[in-house]
Amino acid sequence: MAINSSGESFNKVNFATPRSFATTFRSHAKETLFPDDPFKEFKNEKPLKKALQYFVPIFEWLPKYNLSLFRYDFLAGITITSLAIPQGISYAKLANVPPIIGLYSSFVPPLIYAIFGSSKHIAIGTVAAASLLIAAMIEEKVSYDDNPSLYVHLVFTATLFTGIFQSLLGIFRLGILVDFLSHSTIIGFMSGTAIIICLQQLKGIFGLTHFTTKTDLISVMHAVFSHRNEWRWESAVVGICFLAFLLFTRYLRKRNPRLFWVSAIAPMVTVIVGGVFAYFAHVEKHGIQIVGHLKKGLNPPSIQYLNFDSQYLPVTLKAGIISGILALAEGIAIGRSFAIMRNYQTDGNKEMIAFGFMNIVGSFTSCYLTTGPFSKSAVNFNAGCRTAMSNIVMAVCMMLTLLFLAPLFSYTPLVALSAIIMTAMFGLIEYEEAYRLFKVDKFDFCICMAAFFGVTFISMDVGLMMSVGLSVIRALLYVARPATCKLGNVPDSILFRDIEQYPGSNEIPGMLILQLGSPIYFANCAYIKERVWRWIREENGISNSKENVVEHLLLDFGGVTAIDIAGLETLQELKNSLDSNEIKVSIINPRIEVMEKMILSKFMERVGKESFFLSIEDAVEACRFSMHHEPKAMNGFSGNLEAP
Amino acid sequence: MAINSSGESFNKVNFATPRSFATTFRSHAKETLFPDDPFKEFKNEKPLKKALQYFVPIFEWLPKYNLSLFRYDFLAGITITSLAIPQGISYAKLANVPPIIGLYSSFVPPLIYAIFGSSKHIAIGTVAAASLLIAAMIEEKVSYDDNPSLYVHLVFTATLFTGIFQSLLGIFRLGILVDFLSHSTIIGFMSGTAIIICLQQLKGIFGLTHFTTKTDLISVMHAVFSHRNEWRWESAVVGICFLAFLLFTRYLRKRNPRLFWVSAIAPMVTVIVGGVFAYFAHVEKHGIQIVGHLKKGLNPPSIQYLNFDSQYLPVTLKAGIISGILALAEGIAIGRSFAIMRNYQTDGNKEMIAFGFMNIVGSFTSCYLTTGPFSKSAVNFNAGCRTAMSNIVMAVCMMLTLLFLAPLFSYTPLVALSAIIMTAMFGLIEYEEAYRLFKVDKFDFCICMAAFFGVTFISMDVGLMMSVGLSVIRALLYVARPATCKLGNVPDSILFRDIEQYPGSNEIPGMLILQLGSPIYFANCAYIKERVWRWIREENGISNSKENVVEHLLLDFGGVTAIDIAGLETLQELKNSLDSNEIKVSIINPRIEVMEKMILSKFMERVGKESFFLSIEDAVEACRFSMHHEPKAMNGFSGNLEAP
Repeated sequence: MAINSSGESFNKVNFATPRSFATTFRSHAKETLFPDDPFKEFKNEKPLKKALQYFVPIFEWLPKYNLSLFRYDFLAGITITSLAIPQGISYAKLANVPPIIGLYSSFVPPLIYAIFGSSKHIAIGTVAAASLLIAAMIEEKVSYDDNPSLYVHLVFTATLFTGIFQSLLGIFRLGILVDFLSHSTIIGFMSGTAIIICLQQLKGIFGLTHFTTKTDLISVMHAVFSHRNEWRWESAVVGICFLAFLLFTRYLRKRNPRLFWVSAIAPMVTVIVGGVFAYFAHVEKHGIQIVGHLKKGLNPPSIQYLNFDSQYLPVTLKAGIISGILALAEGIAIGRSFAIMRNYQTDGNKEMIAFGFMNIVGSFTSCYLTTGPFSKSAVNFNAGCRTAMSNIVMAVCMMLTLLFLAPLFSYTPLVALSAIIMTAMFGLIEYEEAYRLFKVDKFDFCICMAAFFGVTFISMDVGLMMSVGLSVIRALLYVARPATCKLGNVPDSILFRDIEQYPGSNEIPGMLILQLGSPIYFANCAYIKERVWRWIREENGISNSKENVVEHLLLDFGGVTAIDIAGLETLQELKNSLDSNEIKVSIINPRIEVMEKMILSKFMERVGKESFFLSIEDAVEACRFSMHHEPKAMNGFSGNLEAP
Repeated sequence: MAINSSGESFNKVNFATPRSFATTFRSHAKETLFPDDPFKEFKNEKPLKKALQYFVPIFEWLPKYNLSLFRYDFLAGITITSLAIPQGISYAKLANVPPIIGLYSSFVPPLIYAIFGSSKHIAIGTVAAASLLIAAMIEEKVSYDDNPSLYVHLVFTATLFTGIFQSLLGIFRLGILVDFLSHSTIIGFMSGTAIIICLQQLKGIFGLTHFTTKTDLISVMHAVFSHRNEWRWESAVVGICFLAFLLFTRYLRKRNPRLFWVSAIAPMVTVIVGGVFAYFAHVEKHGIQIVGHLKKGLNPPSIQYLNFDSQYLPVTLKAGIISGILALAEGIAIGRSFAIMRNYQTDGNKEMIAFGFMNIVGSFTSCYLTTGPFSKSAVNFNAGCRTAMSNIVMAVCMMLTLLFLAPLFSYTPLVALSAIIMTAMFGLIEYEEAYRLFKVDKFDFCICMAAFFGVTFISMDVGLMMSVGLSVIRALLYVARPATCKLGNVPDSILFRDIEQYPGSNEIPGMLILQLGSPIYFANCAYIKERVWRWIREENGISNSKENVVEHLLLDFGGVTAIDIAGLETLQELKNSLDSNEIKVSIINPRIEVMEKMILSKFMERVGKESFFLSIEDAVEACRFSMHHEPKAMNGFSGNLEAP
């Protein structure tokens, strides 16, 4: 087979001029910010109508809505209302705001979400973790006991910031930020939060009147045991009865998933039974506290209470942003999960805008932070909801409750609420999932544990940040140490594969074939150069006979998706040091991005087109040819070459 | 060709049991922390001697040292001494410490480096950027004018922290941190620093007595023009003469590189001529300031002055760590460059330990931060040094200077020092390099400009952090949006390559072949899933005829070096949604790491071994076979499938 020095008989490598900056920039921006190609719809007929439907999804599904769908949504809406009332009151206690605000928060936000949201299964409401987080952060600055109205106003302000932050993320299409809250982080954070929330409930169960505002395990246990004189056995007995009832309904659901509605209405039953019991038994006299006065009437406006005092701005901003990210992560994750199950698409950026709008409007109408909670959305899904109409049904039910029934709930014993919260929390401790992480990926497990122990022993925001920090370090390590491997020829084929993975593969005498990892850039280029030289040294060490010393280095670039200036310079340095050791280098199959940079930086010119090949087979063939036909000019060349 | 459903006639994929955690952990730790395999030497005979030689390099080169090498090192040592004296005094002025400390800093640290350092060409000394940085940070807390001794003690303490920090980085093998100071960052930072240092020299040139402690362009220009009454024309004239002389010698060197010694000794000539002129002309009377009293004698101990007062600890720690990273980056980069030119190896981690030790000892002996400066090391290299002995020669010369000649330099006019610093700085403004960055990589150019404008308009530490922050964001974007591409068959071959890059490649009807980018993990898995579905939608959009609708999706994993739990779950979700759209998925050539995780997480079991192939050709063959032989079960299947 006749082969000339430019390797013309091989498959041709494409040396076309690089695309213009505008082209590559547009393609990068699109990949980064618009990976889902949202504008594809607008190229059809009726772009205006399409755009409206795109930005306000209710216009898409409402015209097609019909009575048979409404039957499902109505039932689902009723079911989630029965959960929304007890959860609303309970989580409001967790956030340290008056219970009625929890009920308000299930009226306005679901309406807004129904208009702008793209998920069909999310049920809107307050969430335990974010409620506690807001309370913990705002209590640092203002205590509810000292100045209740200021505290509540700051909570509204934080909710406004959450809303603004969430909608900005959506508008600037920065859904990418939420991607950095990994599954492992969320599992650890949720389990840790569940534990500290359960611990908080010891206050209600034991009927304590004094407690700590800190959330970590040690402070809470200290608060519980240092106030032993306040412990009330009556409260504890009632609490344990409710807990047993609720856990039994959970058990029922687990045994028979069709009985999910039993556990769904159990909290409502608890609240009603507890209220009736409290009313007739005059429990306050026995040290069992009740919710207390609940005002009739719809959400009063709260826009005039928003507090932008520079003294409180840092804490409201911080509380708004951190709880906003957390709420987004929960809402988007649950939305995505159900979308996958039912085979439709939710748009992360649109969801953010919907969540943002509902929190902005919420902060004007006496609501605090809402999102799509796991538990409520799961009940909604199981109850067979078909569209976001179930949220509207829930909102209407809540409106009726607020207008006529609210005072009835004022007799609810706090201990019943504690039992409801604890039961909800048990489901969030996912030890099985943590064990699976441990088995499949130790680093993921560490990220999970950082969140878990950070939350339980330090505080919620510190735990979250520790875990995200570890994830980012991991992401940086991925790119700082891309895996390279040595390839060999798989027997009876023309394939070249990793020798460690396919131990039967044959090395080719005199050649070293390496597959490079991706990307090659400033943070790893020094590593890559040193690693390549180590491969060469090891190769020469293994085969000490003069015959097998490396004469050709073949670098497979097929997997390298990106390279930067530092990477190109490193390749040049590598080439220079290889030249001075009489090793020839071949570049195999660089991808389009890499090739363009190689041409622009003149690296390709300096190396020479004849060293570029489209496949490993071609390169091996060319190297074999040059080894047999070229006069050996390496007289003094020994196996102990000194690496640079 | 008979093909059964498990694809046995193809090349076999390796489904071996994953390696144990210990094995993979050891291999990862080695790649991350010991990529250069430092322990390979210890497996030889005489491990103790080897270990000593490894940790204390002087034991390796000194026994082989001889007189002919010393001849070169002696000349180089003398040359760098002539540079060390004026630079030492100048940079000490920049750091706001007494000039004699600059001379002390060229005596002890070079000796320590000669023992522990692994580079043969670095010349140790103080550097302009780090000097100014330390001054700017410590001046924030304590002004030299108010309390000179406290200021100097804090500088020593910061130097100690630098030393401790640098040696810890080396001991824990965290050279990886320095990798995050990219070439682009350093170019921008150095150019910006050069400009603000030149501006600082306006004080000396105009003979100002009042000046600002801030470093940004606006403050400095304001200080210069608001003190116009202090301008002295005599000072300016002398300064411009010296500047012209120094620039002329630089020009000479550029025209004829062999005259490098002219520009190397020019600063010394400037200092001597300036001193003689000042002595005879009594320049102080004409408003030209001189260095002032310089004490004879070697470095006094300073260990008793180290100040760990908690009031100053934050500022000394911050100054120590930031200037330490900067000094490391400069020292390691210059060491690497010369090592590449002369074809030997420097060890980043060993270098850090050497720099760390020399700064620790320096802080005990009245020295401030030293490293391997670009300019001095280049002169050392050009003067023909062979080993670190040239540093010892310089140290001995400095000792003699300190013992006998120091007082002679007290007449040096400050304006001469300003001229020396300005000339040195002009060489650091690399506008050509910045232009090259602009042409090859716009993002690198932004990183460079962030450092440049941050340094010139805000402050040195803010500029550095902005630029590093951008680099980290870029690194995260690399992994958040890995490039996928569609592959087609290159005509007349069995190769499959990117269709965008090789436009002649043929798609295979009914199949979509995608090459995935690396790694696949939590920060990009949502993107990857959406991107894959977009490829499918686009494919179905292009070929609207029923014939060509995608039936098989072939995913090439050859370039994927890592995957985490979130990535595996995404693949599972993708597989489920493809199943429900009747699209079959094939996995091609997963690498060892990825394959192990697929087996551990049971993904492989759920997908089935028959969907794994070793090469694209095999997979295409199998898909083609199944398309022609399997009964079509997709009756209601149309081209407008709804993506999840």
